[in-house]
Parts: sequence; structure tokens; C-alpha cells
Amino acid sequence: MGKGKAKRGIPSKVDDFNAWYPFIVEAAELVDKRYPIKGMDVWRPYGWRAMKLIDSLTHSEMERTEHEEVNFPLLIPENLLDKENALVARLKRAREEGVDPDDLRDEEEEGGFKKEVYWVKHAGENELDIPMFLRPTSETAMYTMFPLWIRSHKDLPLKVYQMVNTFRYETKQTRSFIRVREIHFFEAHTAHADEECATRQIEQDLEIVDNLMHDLCLPVIKARRPVWDTFPGAWYTIGIDAIMPNGRTLQVASCHHYRYQLAKAFDLTYENLDAEQQHCHQTTYGMSERLLGAIVGMHGDDNGLIMPPAIAPYQVVICPMIRKNSEVDTIAKSEEIAAILKSAGLRVKVDKRDIHAGQKYFDWEIKGVPLRLDIGPRDIENNSAFAARRTGGKEPLPLDNIVNECNRVLSEISDELRTRAAAHTENVVIPLTDLENVEDGKIYEIPFDGTDSHAETIERTTGLAFLGDSTDPYNEEKPCLMSGKMTTRRVILAKTY
Amino acid sequence: MGKGKAKRGIPSKVDDFNAWYPFIVEAAELVDKRYPIKGMDVWRPYGWRAMKLIDSLTHSEMERTEHEEVNFPLLIPENLLDKENALVARLKRAREEGVDPDDLRDEEEEGGFKKEVYWVKHAGENELDIPMFLRPTSETAMYTMFPLWIRSHKDLPLKVYQMVNTFRYETKQTRSFIRVREIHFFEAHTAHADEECATRQIEQDLEIVDNLMHDLCLPVIKARRPVWDTFPGAWYTIGIDAIMPNGRTLQVASCHHYRYQLAKAFDLTYENLDAEQQHCHQTTYGMSERLLGAIVGMHGDDNGLIMPPAIAPYQVVICPMIRKNSEVDTIAKSEEIAAILKSAGLRVKVDKRDIHAGQKYFDWEIKGVPLRLDIGPRDIENNSAFAARRTGGKEPLPLDNIVNECNRVLSEISDELRTRAAAHTENVVIPLTDLENVEDGKIYEIPFDGTDSHAETIERTTGLAFLGDSTDPYNEEKPCLMSGKMTTRRVILAKTY
Repeated sequence: MGKGKAKRGIPSKVDDFNAWYPFIVEAAELVDKRYPIKGMDVWRPYGWRAMKLIDSLTHSEMERTEHEEVNFPLLIPENLLDKENALVARLKRAREEGVDPDDLRDEEEEGGFKKEVYWVKHAGENELDIPMFLRPTSETAMYTMFPLWIRSHKDLPLKVYQMVNTFRYETKQTRSFIRVREIHFFEAHTAHADEECATRQIEQDLEIVDNLMHDLCLPVIKARRPVWDTFPGAWYTIGIDAIMPNGRTLQVASCHHYRYQLAKAFDLTYENLDAEQQHCHQTTYGMSERLLGAIVGMHGDDNGLIMPPAIAPYQVVICPMIRKNSEVDTIAKSEEIAAILKSAGLRVKVDKRDIHAGQKYFDWEIKGVPLRLDIGPRDIENNSAFAARRTGGKEPLPLDNIVNECNRVLSEISDELRTRAAAHTENVVIPLTDLENVEDGKIYEIPFDGTDSHAETIERTTGLAFLGDSTDPYNEEKPCLMSGKMTTRRVILAKTY
Repeated sequence: MGKGKAKRGIPSKVDDFNAWYPFIVEAAELVDKRYPIKGMDVWRPYGWRAMKLIDSLTHSEMERTEHEEVNFPLLIPENLLDKENALVARLKRAREEGVDPDDLRDEEEEGGFKKEVYWVKHAGENELDIPMFLRPTSETAMYTMFPLWIRSHKDLPLKVYQMVNTFRYETKQTRSFIRVREIHFFEAHTAHADEECATRQIEQDLEIVDNLMHDLCLPVIKARRPVWDTFPGAWYTIGIDAIMPNGRTLQVASCHHYRYQLAKAFDLTYENLDAEQQHCHQTTYGMSERLLGAIVGMHGDDNGLIMPPAIAPYQVVICPMIRKNSEVDTIAKSEEIAAILKSAGLRVKVDKRDIHAGQKYFDWEIKGVPLRLDIGPRDIENNSAFAARRTGGKEPLPLDNIVNECNRVLSEISDELRTRAAAHTENVVIPLTDLENVEDGKIYEIPFDGTDSHAETIERTTGLAFLGDSTDPYNEEKPCLMSGKMTTRRVILAKTY
């Protein structure tokens, strides 16, 4: 691995990603980690703007696909969880015993969630009759209400989503955006008439993922998780994993197809056209602030962040050269240009600070503003702005056509980020041929059609986790690495966050 | 009081506001109160849209006034509260003993907040070392971080805000938007170099209030709260009260000037131009979902809500007349008109349901859509749409100029709502001349320059609360109702929510 350069105290990303990441997150003023609860950071204005711009892309996709936004209470009474826990326990037993879950009866068992939630058992000076917990996710809260909203086939599909704070009592080491205890969370929940409609919803979810990842310039792996890594209560789970620079994968989103399993637990039925009561089929689609973590990790370099233009809080920063006694008003000209760009919908900042230009450049590079325009007396004379791309490269841009020129350059910067990310993916995701020969920092793919026990052997031998079956299988059959059976199943193995 | 008409089960607003309000909140699908925690409602899509449109007006004002958005953790460790509690206790003692608070020492005392918060003392299966509580408001969380962000005069003013969920353990009867346990909350917090700068911030806050209330068509009373009703730790508090139909006032916003009091408690200093350490002067400006409660209460009528156009989720609903075997495609025409209106920035819904027109009208009246356009074959023939205002009145609008016509009508509807609200205010807010003769449903104003004991007598005799000194004093001096001293102080008395 080449020796990366360290610039003014920024750790080298290539040499020491684990030091670079937390440094850059604070140096770019995305969050402040000094709040006195571990894993609960303060979102600073710049970080919160970036996050909200990611959210607004999601809002647009939700509107396009006719999801409606709701907002559920944060607190969930413990007793609401009972139905779900009983179901999850039953599914687990059915899986272990190899029988149909419908043949088993519910049993009281502590669900896994209970060990990971924050509890509210006291209010004021009182102990509460029924303990409540802070939502780790909202299935329980929502599916308690859905039966009140769904009566007949006319109420279907029900497609709602919310963007809220969720909580998880993390005992592992926390990391900004990646592993936190208060999570900025997106969750869409849908109910449908039958399995097929629910399956189409999952397909739509994956299409939304593609659209978002295009804007964020993030390549992802979409994989149907193995049975043992399926979300509790789900029929199947598709995990969406971003690839981090160190070759670890970071799950940034997931979709769950519940079939009618949760509907049975929550008595969620509808009257069909034949006046019969049917169970709904349900899906969930979740994403979180991990998207921002992936952006930070994937695109940044030794000078700081590189923000994809679609979510850059400032897409363009204009730096007027400030010379005392100059006859040319570079600040006025910069503001004029900023006004033109803003009226065209671009997010623009004029840095009027009377400090050394090098300091300005340094500040905006750390923050990852994709395009910087320098405006000096000579630029004004030439009726141009001197453009510096955060991805590298400088050129003069004619002021007469500045909106189109900026849009062109920003679009090229997005393309450059996609090209770099794709090259990284290609470099990192490689076929595994020898279980004994696993390289650090790589993600492996294998043709696989073996048993759970085969999978266990692979995980134990390689130290890698099964991400599951890629939604993009092989074009032609290949022999399974373990069983030798011919298959098109492309299974992904990785070290995960 | 006249007998209001009841329509299809809607209680009469005039006769029984206490039944009308909760009915309409659910019938219009703003929230669902059936969530199994009292005072924690589920925001349904229509209600959440309205709330977010109110929020977006606030965001615009925040951007105009150069506040930056942040997002702080929900949980606050109990020990952070100690500084604030000691201060509040000291201020209270100083007030009671009539001495300068700086002459008193801090004493441990339980702050009032502790009795009103939800506690997190457990996580997973562990008891936490330091109990945490869900924020009722964020002074404590923020002022713990401000000293890390403010070093010199160059860091001032610091102006931040957030929109978050806050919590209050209400023991009184809950009421949607008005008294809830999870509160959708706005809070701006600022730090300044001196008292004067902080005072100017309060003036700017009140200007923002005026702008928002204009858009929401809500008349409000702004009153400097009496000492005993000042926010703990504040030098003074200005409460902003909306006037509800039953003559009660509802505090929808408040501004607090802390002077340097909290800065002392939190060690918040900056280095001034003379290289001296100075305490900051701070302010807070808060608002909540009560704004929506005031809108519901103030503008609605016996047919349902009336949404002010500025925050109506749908400003225009288009109802195509659906006649079987008609040769004219009213739905296509309606969608064509909707597309034109939407591209002009209007929020529009086409109601294509194949149900009786009366049912559609009923549904959209309950939801308070300000303008309905009916499109039938004859309207299309005349190249017009038949417009029905939610505030009353019908007229044909020429389709050739439909954007301008809709904007004109919406603007007139806003004016009509303002006129109605102003008339209500004029009718309800009256001078008090005789303490023994207080009418239900009225708000009183008095010239007042008496003592706290005078005030207590008034409150006891009338059963009304002191809202405080109106920010709009009398133009000329009048004799104080109790002491006879000449004064321009206009004090407002009301029954409050």
C-alpha cells in the first residue's frame, strides 16, 4: 500500500482509514462528538444540511412512488412487543426444527430487541405501570395501528414512511454515522393484498435504491441475506451494502418481505372482492445516516471530504481575491455571480473572509465543496472565473455562460466520483478460489449452492461473513465452490461493519 | 350564544368547542389518537403535511435571519442539569428574598423539570450509571456544547435552531397539539456579545412571529410575562398567545432573554476586542405544534377545518363531474388544469373517485381545502371552472387565466380568515372595569402598575391569569385599576390553556 500524504494534521486515508475517518468527520464540522453520551453526536449545521439533502432525495423518491409521510410516537409500550416476540420465537423454532411455523404454537420468549433498547420505566417521580422503550425501528408501533386503517381491498396498498430518530443500545465501539446510539432513520412500511404485490414493492424499493445511489455516486452490493441473517419475522431480507475504502462493507439500507407472517401476529386483515377476510402481505424498507458515513468514507481523500454535487451543502464556493487598494471590487462581482447561480437553483457560498487564500482553499477542501471559483481582478478583466474541481483539475469558465458551465462541471465531477468508486469496486470485489488464501481489504464472490454447514465452513475458514446472494447472479452456471453443483448463484463474502 | 348546526355528526363548534375540537382533529385525519399511549398521537399524512408546511415557513424565516440548523441528541444526562438547577434555585431565592442573585451561593435543589420528564435509567438489561432524561427543551444540552464553540467575539453571534421531538410527562388532560406528551418542537438558541445584541435578537424573534402569524392568519397577543411566570433562568419572557374561539388563550410561542445568567452557570465566555473574557448574553425562541392547534381552533367551522392557504396541504382540490357515457373527459381536463397549477407552485389534488359529488365536497370541507374547482361538461364548454371557496362564495373562473385567478382567490381567502380572526379578537378582548363582573369567554385588558399583591388579588377575584404586559402598550397614560397610578402598561388577563 502506498504511503499517503498527510496534510496539516489530517491522517492519511490510505494508510490509516480508522484514524482518517473520525478526524475528518469532526474537522469538516459534520458532527461534534464531545457531547457527553458516547455514540450520540451533535449534528452541526454543515453535517445536518448534508443529511437533510440526502433526506430530500429520499422524499422525492417517496413522492414519485406514492408513499405518504407519517410520524409515529417514539415510545412503544413493552406489552405491544409480545405478539411480535412470540412470532419471532416461533419462526426461530420452526427454522431450527425444520417444520412449518404455522404448525407451532406461540411461546413466551424474550425477543432479541429487548436487550438492545433504552427503557423508560419512570416519569417524573412515578414508576410507570407499563414500561416503554425508545423505538429501535417502528414495526411494532405501526403494525398496532395498521389494522385500524385497513378494512378492505380499497385501503390497499398502504404505503407510508417516516424519517425519525431511533435508538439502539450499542455495546460495540461507536463510530459517527456508522454505529451510533441515536440514529437518524428512514423507514417505509407497506401492506398489500398478496405476496406478488409485496414482491413488486421490494422491486420498487431496489429501484429507489439505484436512483439514490446514482445521486450519491455510491456503488452498492444488493444481496439476499442468508436465512440466519434474515430480519426477525421476515420471509427474506435484501441488504444493501456500500463498499468502504478498507474493503469492509457497510449495510446502508435493507428491504424485508414479511409475506403474511407479521399480519398474522398483528391481526392485519382486509376484506377482498369476494367479501372474504385475507391477511395482508407486508414489506419494510429502511435506510439511515450510514448513507452519509458511506459518502464520507468512499469519496473523501487526504485533503478532506468530497461531497457528491447532489447533496453538497454548497455545490460552489466563490473566493474573491481580496487585495487592499485594488480598484476592482471582486467581492461585489462574486456576489453577483452567486446570485445568478442561486437563482438557477445552485447552492452557493461566497467566502468574503479577509484571510489568506490558502486558508480558504484548505477549509473548503476539508468540507468537500465540489467546485471552487476564484475571482481576481484579472479574471474579471477576462470575464471569466477560475474553476478548481475538488476532484482535481483547473480551468477558466466564461462568466457569460456561468450557470451552464457550473452545471456541466458539477455533472462531470459526479461522473468522476462514480468512475472512481466503480474502479474501487472492481479492484476490491474479486472471485474467491482458495478458502485458505484470503487477502485483507478484499470482498469475495463465489458460485455457491451448498448447505448451511458448507456456509459455516466458509465463514469459519475465511473469517468473512456471508452477505448473501447477489441480486445480480452469474450469467452462466458455474460449479459451487463447496458442493460442485452447477449454479448461477453469486454469493458475496466480506468483512462487515 | 346562537345554536350552531351539526352536520353529519360533527359537533357544533359554537355550542360545544370542547367536543368539536377533538372530533375534527380525527375526522380531518390530522392525527390518530388510538395509539396506546395517552397524549402521544400518530401524525397521519394530512396532519404531518400541514405541520411540515408550517415548519417550512419557519425554516425560511430562519434562513432569512441567518440562523443555522443543528440537531442535538434527545437524551440528556441528569448531571448536566445540576448547574442549571442550582442557578434556577438561586434566582428563585434571590427573588423571594429581594436580593441580587449574584450575592447568593448555589445550593443543591431539585429543579422543577425533574418532575416533568421521562427518565431513561435502563438500557438493555443494564441499569445506567447516570440516569438520562428525554429533553423537554434543549437549553441544558446546547449550553453544555456552546462553550466549546465560542472562543472569541468572532464566533458571535451564534444563532442556531432545531426542529425535534421533545417530551413532557403531562399529568393534566391531554389534547391533540395543545397538550401532548411528545411535542413536535422548534427551538432557536442564540449567544451574543452583550445585553443589547440579545435584546435586538428578541426584537427579531417578534418580527418573525409577526411574519408567521400573518401567513397562518392568526392574531396573537404578545405579552411580557409577569415575574412569577418567567421561564426559569430567564431575565424576562415574552409569551405569544393565540386566541381560541372559546376565549381561552393558547401560548403558541415564547422568547426568553437570559442576559448573562445562564452563561454564568455554564461558563460561557468569549474574548472581547480588548482580550478580556466576557460572559455571553443568550436568548431562546420556541414554538410548537400548538400552532396547528391554534389554526384548527381559530379557523374551523361546523363543516370542518379551514386551512390557511400558506400551509394547506392541498390549496386547490379539483372535482371532475363523473358522468357515465359522457363524451367529455372531465378527468383528463382536471388533470390538465392540475398540471398547470402545480407547475406554478400550487398544491393541488384531483379527486377522481367515482362517488357522489356531495361526498367529495363533504370530505374536502372537513379537511379544510381552501379552494375547490368543479369541472363539468358545461364548465369545459364555457372554458371555465366553477370555484367554491371554503370560506363561502362561488364563482366561475376562466381557465385561460387559471393560475392568476386561483392565486387571487387564495389570497382573498387568506384575507377573509384574517378579517374573521381580527373581528373575533376585537369581540373577545375588552377592557376590564369591574373585578366582580367577569364574563366567560372574554379576555380582558387593564391599565396596571400595581404590586404583586395587587396582581394576586386580581387573579383570585377574577379567576383569570396575568398574561403580562402587552408589547403594545396604551397610547396615553391611564390610571392603574388597582393603585390609581397613571401608566401606559396594558396588562392582559385571560383563562389559558
